[in-house]
Amino acid sequence: MPKLSPLAPTEFPALPPVPGTVLGGDNCGIRYKHKKDLFLAELAPGSTIAGVFTRSKTASAPVEWCRKALRGGKVRAIVVNSGNSNAFTGSGGVASVKRTVDKAAAVVGCKPREVFIASTGVIGEPLPDEKVTAALAGLRARLDADAWRAGAEAIMTTDTFAKGATATARIGGTTVTINGIAKGSGMIAPDMATMLAFVFTDAKIPAAALQTMLVKANDRSFNAVTVDGDTSTSDTVLLCATGQAKHPKVSGAGDAKLRGFKTALEAVMRDLALQVVRDGEGAEKLITITVTGAASAKAARRIGFSIANSPLVKTAIAGEDANWGRIVMAVGKAGEKADRDKLAIAIGGVRVAAKGVRVPGYDEAPVAAHMKGREIAIDVDVGVGRGQATVWTCDLTHGYIDINADYRT
Amino acid sequence: MPKLSPLAPTEFPALPPVPGTVLGGDNCGIRYKHKKDLFLAELAPGSTIAGVFTRSKTASAPVEWCRKALRGGKVRAIVVNSGNSNAFTGSGGVASVKRTVDKAAAVVGCKPREVFIASTGVIGEPLPDEKVTAALAGLRARLDADAWRAGAEAIMTTDTFAKGATATARIGGTTVTINGIAKGSGMIAPDMATMLAFVFTDAKIPAAALQTMLVKANDRSFNAVTVDGDTSTSDTVLLCATGQAKHPKVSGAGDAKLRGFKTALEAVMRDLALQVVRDGEGAEKLITITVTGAASAKAARRIGFSIANSPLVKTAIAGEDANWGRIVMAVGKAGEKADRDKLAIAIGGVRVAAKGVRVPGYDEAPVAAHMKGREIAIDVDVGVGRGQATVWTCDLTHGYIDINADYRT
Repeated sequence: MPKLSPLAPTEFPALPPVPGTVLGGDNCGIRYKHKKDLFLAELAPGSTIAGVFTRSKTASAPVEWCRKALRGGKVRAIVVNSGNSNAFTGSGGVASVKRTVDKAAAVVGCKPREVFIASTGVIGEPLPDEKVTAALAGLRARLDADAWRAGAEAIMTTDTFAKGATATARIGGTTVTINGIAKGSGMIAPDMATMLAFVFTDAKIPAAALQTMLVKANDRSFNAVTVDGDTSTSDTVLLCATGQAKHPKVSGAGDAKLRGFKTALEAVMRDLALQVVRDGEGAEKLITITVTGAASAKAARRIGFSIANSPLVKTAIAGEDANWGRIVMAVGKAGEKADRDKLAIAIGGVRVAAKGVRVPGYDEAPVAAHMKGREIAIDVDVGVGRGQATVWTCDLTHGYIDINADYRT
Repeated sequence: MPKLSPLAPTEFPALPPVPGTVLGGDNCGIRYKHKKDLFLAELAPGSTIAGVFTRSKTASAPVEWCRKALRGGKVRAIVVNSGNSNAFTGSGGVASVKRTVDKAAAVVGCKPREVFIASTGVIGEPLPDEKVTAALAGLRARLDADAWRAGAEAIMTTDTFAKGATATARIGGTTVTINGIAKGSGMIAPDMATMLAFVFTDAKIPAAALQTMLVKANDRSFNAVTVDGDTSTSDTVLLCATGQAKHPKVSGAGDAKLRGFKTALEAVMRDLALQVVRDGEGAEKLITITVTGAASAKAARRIGFSIANSPLVKTAIAGEDANWGRIVMAVGKAGEKADRDKLAIAIGGVRVAAKGVRVPGYDEAPVAAHMKGREIAIDVDVGVGRGQATVWTCDLTHGYIDINADYRT
């Protein structure tokens, strides 16, 4: 077990029950002897589901299954194992998914296409799915409405802390709950549904509306973070709505009654996404990068990620060095329109460069003090338009090398 | 001075004179007290020039000057300083370039637009060009035809060894020489003219033909390497032809008499590019990645760079771990067409995966032995077409963090 990230929250939050959802985590011996490695959630009949997945061209067998199952829009069970990603396992991997899904459907008493599955861990090793299927009935018997922390622990791999978040919203006067758990620490990159996250609500929302809201919230949360720019073969975010809350019927994603729900959903997902960055492999500092003045929001985001994924920027921050020249470099390499002679940079709220040069009489002292903190803020205005975006990342430290140079040994 | 790269060549090669070229390197006190930081080359009247430059949107003032001067196609002098990149220095930086160019033109006795200039080092600090201009006349008086090593040393920054390469070619029965020097160690990324390199030949070749040949050779050399995926604001490759060799006239880049010259030019540039990778910051291993079976050469190259820039692949290699699952991941995230179920991977010539799964009876022992060596070969066939490409990179080690977490201190 690696040492706890210095950026970890002080404790796992108190997650209330989400009516219509029971869950649990257990060890079934896939890779670890003691760590929980099997997650099961069971949803009430009638629950709807939305999902976003990795854009990898070598996506895993479980991701392919979920994409297909999502067409039904219904969910009764989610099965997740950690320790083995069942990715790049060929037809054996597909068969393994089928056996797991069939067994879970039998145990829960639903159709296979109401079962969603995710696997995370080593790539390319056959998944010993017999350990999963053998454990499902026993785990199901012990599911309860409060096992959020056990569930979050069961999906962890190199994570140093379990990740959960919760919020409530009102839909037409009725309070609904949104709970989420996530895992992720390395192989975290933007521009896709990143890592594993499972979000549950007791709201009653049709699958299509759920999907629209998930895609949007995902864009502002998981798709706005990066640890190392590497994209997993298994990234999966699922959002389940059990429909147990007694609120007025909602018509679709555009329904005004969902305004508060959307805000709460985005808050839960952003909270989880930031916890993933806070647990970035070897992370010592959480970095918030805000880009303004870009040609478009998309351009701003691309410039933000160019900064966030630059090893030279990330190592400078690890060294507590306000090396803003590297930020200039990263803006330049993004390939998006930027006016070198209007570029402005602030670090920790202190203006460092403006109009394309270092500010006159620049005093590095307050910036150097900011660099010593745990949370670093970088603001860049590229001087060409009104596009803006915020992205989050962590620094690149010796810890990252330690963790990844001998992951399998 | 950081310790010598373990991948360094045993010695600086013996570079013969290139008729029409004299050069030298000296210390003028820009940033370092003792290390040479000023390079000057003087070319015979009538010399032609070609150049390729960074595609950064925040390119430095010297790069902008060279782009303009290149329109004339003539060169009499190249001035390079190390220790300060004169990048992101606003109108002050532009004025600094003008003063340097004017002084060099006066010293050499040529037009300003026959003077090319490059600066490498810290970004965003005003360049003390008075130190450069004060030193030019003295340095010019000491130029000679054999100072290749001194020249190569003068352009170094975090490099741990001076980089030179030479080759000869025959043009219509006459032997010509091609010498090159280069610098670069970090902020090295593909898809542009990377870092600084200066190549000299005594062949007599019109500027337009020279440019065509340079772009092509650059694509297969400097544009095929990466250290950290970060693109400099100052990347510059210049190719000068003094025209002193008495070979038959060449008509253009398509002239059959230039076939041998092109091969030799590419050999010199590839040699220099690989020396840059061998001196990659913190590099312990040189990695050659060959991608075949892609939809196009461009797709193959993009997949190659996705592998070459993946921190997870690079740290696995640093840890001597044949973690081919991360290669699968990097293929998947490249965004190019690949058939997961036809993907084949070999490491050190040993087939590891084929048809989308680990090969039956895979024996990791010979692969593990290969991983302990200094030169790692990765071959990937993505199973969809006939496009292929080779790219080179180095591993990502604690040394990279050490060097970059406190570059300015």
